Amino acid sequence: LHGPADFRIRRPAPADSDDPEGLAFAESEKYLEQASSSGVGALLLPRQAAPTAKPCILVDQPRVAFGMVLKMASRPLPLAEGVHPTAVVHPEARVAATASIGAFAVVERGAEIGDGCRVFAHCYVGENCRLGSGTILYPHAVLYQDVSVGERSVVHAGAVLGADGFGYAWDGKRRLKVPQVGRVVLGDDVEIGALAAVDRATAGTTTVGNGTKIDNLVQVGHNCRIGEHGVIASQTGLSGSVSVGDRAVMGGQVGTADHVAIGDDVTLGARSGIMRDIPKPGAYLGAPAKPFREEMRLIAMLGRLPELMDRVKELERRLAAAEGAEE
Amino acid sequence: LHGPADFRIRRPAPADSDDPEGLAFAESEKYLEQASSSGVGALLLPRQAAPTAKPCILVDQPRVAFGMVLKMASRPLPLAEGVHPTAVVHPEARVAATASIGAFAVVERGAEIGDGCRVFAHCYVGENCRLGSGTILYPHAVLYQDVSVGERSVVHAGAVLGADGFGYAWDGKRRLKVPQVGRVVLGDDVEIGALAAVDRATAGTTTVGNGTKIDNLVQVGHNCRIGEHGVIASQTGLSGSVSVGDRAVMGGQVGTADHVAIGDDVTLGARSGIMRDIPKPGAYLGAPAKPFREEMRLIAMLGRLPELMDRVKELERRLAAAEGAEE
Amino acid sequence: LHGPADFRIRRPAPADSDDPEGLAFAESEKYLEQASSSGVGALLLPRQAAPTAKPCILVDQPRVAFGMVLKMASRPLPLAEGVHPTAVVHPEARVAATASIGAFAVVERGAEIGDGCRVFAHCYVGENCRLGSGTILYPHAVLYQDVSVGERSVVHAGAVLGADGFGYAWDGKRRLKVPQVGRVVLGDDVEIGALAAVDRATAGTTTVGNGTKIDNLVQVGHNCRIGEHGVIASQTGLSGSVSVGDRAVMGGQVGTADHVAIGDDVTLGARSGIMRDIPKPGAYLGAPAKPFREEMRLIAMLGRLPELMDRVKELERRLAAAEGAEE
Repeated sequence: LHGPADFRIRRPAPADSDDPEGLAFAESEKYLEQASSSGVGALLLPRQAAPTAKPCILVDQPRVAFGMVLKMASRPLPLAEGVHPTAVVHPEARVAATASIGAFAVVERGAEIGDGCRVFAHCYVGENCRLGSGTILYPHAVLYQDVSVGERSVVHAGAVLGADGFGYAWDGKRRLKVPQVGRVVLGDDVEIGALAAVDRATAGTTTVGNGTKIDNLVQVGHNCRIGEHGVIASQTGLSGSVSVGDRAVMGGQVGTADHVAIGDDVTLGARSGIMRDIPKPGAYLGAPAKPFREEMRLIAMLGRLPELMDRVKELERRLAAAEGAEE
Repeated sequence: LHGPADFRIRRPAPADSDDPEGLAFAESEKYLEQASSSGVGALLLPRQAAPTAKPCILVDQPRVAFGMVLKMASRPLPLAEGVHPTAVVHPEARVAATASIGAFAVVERGAEIGDGCRVFAHCYVGENCRLGSGTILYPHAVLYQDVSVGERSVVHAGAVLGADGFGYAWDGKRRLKVPQVGRVVLGDDVEIGALAAVDRATAGTTTVGNGTKIDNLVQVGHNCRIGEHGVIASQTGLSGSVSVGDRAVMGGQVGTADHVAIGDDVTLGARSGIMRDIPKPGAYLGAPAKPFREEMRLIAMLGRLPELMDRVKELERRLAAAEGAEE
Repeated sequence: LHGPADFRIRRPAPADSDDPEGLAFAESEKYLEQASSSGVGALLLPRQAAPTAKPCILVDQPRVAFGMVLKMASRPLPLAEGVHPTAVVHPEARVAATASIGAFAVVERGAEIGDGCRVFAHCYVGENCRLGSGTILYPHAVLYQDVSVGERSVVHAGAVLGADGFGYAWDGKRRLKVPQVGRVVLGDDVEIGALAAVDRATAGTTTVGNGTKIDNLVQVGHNCRIGEHGVIASQTGLSGSVSVGDRAVMGGQVGTADHVAIGDDVTLGARSGIMRDIPKPGAYLGAPAKPFREEMRLIAMLGRLPELMDRVKELERRLAAAEGAEE
């Protein structure tokens, strides 16, 4: 700990913040430079760091320490205990005594809300839905019927779980709806971003495995099976019946064809377009997706296309000259 | 019908399900293999199929029969008849006696809700909106003012119809809002996916024709005119004033420029980017979109770009040698 | 003014409308043709225009005049003054006497709603949020805690401001949530489209500058800093910690990598993919994004790839022949 004894930190802050009461971390030269020239009040630095003009705390791992500061600063969205008087809870729903249900929430027949769940204002929890203990539904989350969420999971505002899968049969004149009667099952420690959609299965189950985190505005189609401990970034779309293995990492705006199977430990760069199965672990990029290095090489080569065109032109000129010389 | 007389099926299931009380269909060898090795309880098979270890029902068209099973298993999201006591319905709105209005729904002045409509919890039906008979608004659907939906249409949870089109004029310093005063008109048998947005027209009407199905998270810009009996998959975005003919098929994440006109019977593969009019029927792919085969050939050729580069290098080497020999 | 004295215009209309009581504008030959052959009732034309069969008003700038007609036709979504009796407003929230709060809205502790604000039905305004005077939240807008919106701003239906940023640390087995404790600050005259998401910062602030307009279904990641007077079209996604300068123009479905910095006066064409900083003003396109002309040239060249392939083949044939002749 270095600096004046009466110096006060009020909150964590990014390194380039102008907050004189903010505490930022700097684990690299770049961050340190940023932090030195910004207005941020104090710094978390590695033990071996040179002294700085700002008050600082020297720690083994600045990033980890900063995570602890974030945790200390974290303040849950407030929700009164018990069932809000305006909420409409069906008499045949079961709500744990330790669960909280917010204003204007609707909980339908047969739904089960586990211990310590927090269902915020305006949520709709449909018939026969189940929330494991400690799960949070932020305001305006919508669960159609037969949606099951595990323990300690989080569904952000406006997310929709269990809407109909997109299935129609063409009869030569019009689209006939294929009834969608399946379910959605999310595991434990899952997080679903704001305004994301996870469709119910046509028959059977759309699943998201334990610990998988899904970002805002993501689409998960009917009958998808997503493995455990993955991360899927914003605006990615998984079509119907796509399977994804464990520990998937997907950048934003990825898209897949129907029915493709993506194996364990696959990383898909942002915007990748998956048209075929990817059984092997590794990093992939592009549309259609290729191994990461191959795609990077292709991108580089594309940039050289004008040059290639010129070289072919030059070859044609020289060859014509050579042919002329021969005659 | 083959199998033990006391065997019970409880629900339809996919071929790879482990549900011992599930009934799957298998119309192809691949599905049959899947179903044989999975835990699914029973099968719908074509009449000519070889006997299987599992109980089965032989039918003319397994897929069609499965569709009938799905229909039998379909259970509508529950909604009590009549107007829920918590709903706020303006005295000058007209709600048919056979319509149902859910908890916390808001129906504004001049709105008309037709026979047998089902307006679920938390929906907002704005001023002068109209729902034709048999139309369903799932929880949290939002209709601004002047939105008209035909008969037997479905709007899924969180969809927003009639928000302002995205129109601003630049005055050299700032963006001035172009007032958006038009309407949205959806035809009969239309389906709008969860969290999809259909903007009102600047002036006039944004239209979606009879029987067209739109998936989750799709954007339909102001003044679009979409024809009949099309399907538009998830996360596709249609800019302002785009026209789309009848029987369109669009994959996911398609995007269009403003004002383009797409004709009847056009199929756009996933991720297609439409920069110009497409008057002729057919299948298109790519960005900018090209006839399907042309784009597939281009994709294949792109994969050969490294090889092409090598061949040009080799040509240069050989030509230099040949030129040297001449001198 | 030309035409019969008793002719009545009821509303603005597009040039190709069939509305006999509609007034369209035609500033170009193309629009004039459209309007002449459509059923639209009357026209706004430039003063020098030739006489037309339809009633018309001659003005200096038809487009500007049409904007005035749009403004005259504009009708705000109705909302009764004061706090709706069903709304749940925390006793420690401050709501200006001239503000309107709709049915089933929730306003949490410490929130401040400024003069003349219009908070529509079902909105959720979280703890310590602030709305500057004249700001509108359309139905179903959700603001988590600590979200500040300036004056005269508009948040459309279903938009979510302040959900957690997408941050997790991998501990070798699972994803550990990085607590998200920062805020969202929107400036004055900002517009946020329907179903758009602006995440709170991990620490510090996610900002959208004065006058910037964001379209439907856009994702703005945690700690983004977006400048003033920009426009960002539908389905664009900005990853975490992206900075965007003033007067940005982004087409639809643009995507960015984390931490990129985009300077002032940058225009990004639809679908651009930004992988590196773009410090210089100008128009860019493509993924990875390149200066507009360069990308257009590349697209053209890509179309000539089959031809290039043929030319290389032909060169190989001719060179082999030449080499044969030499021997």
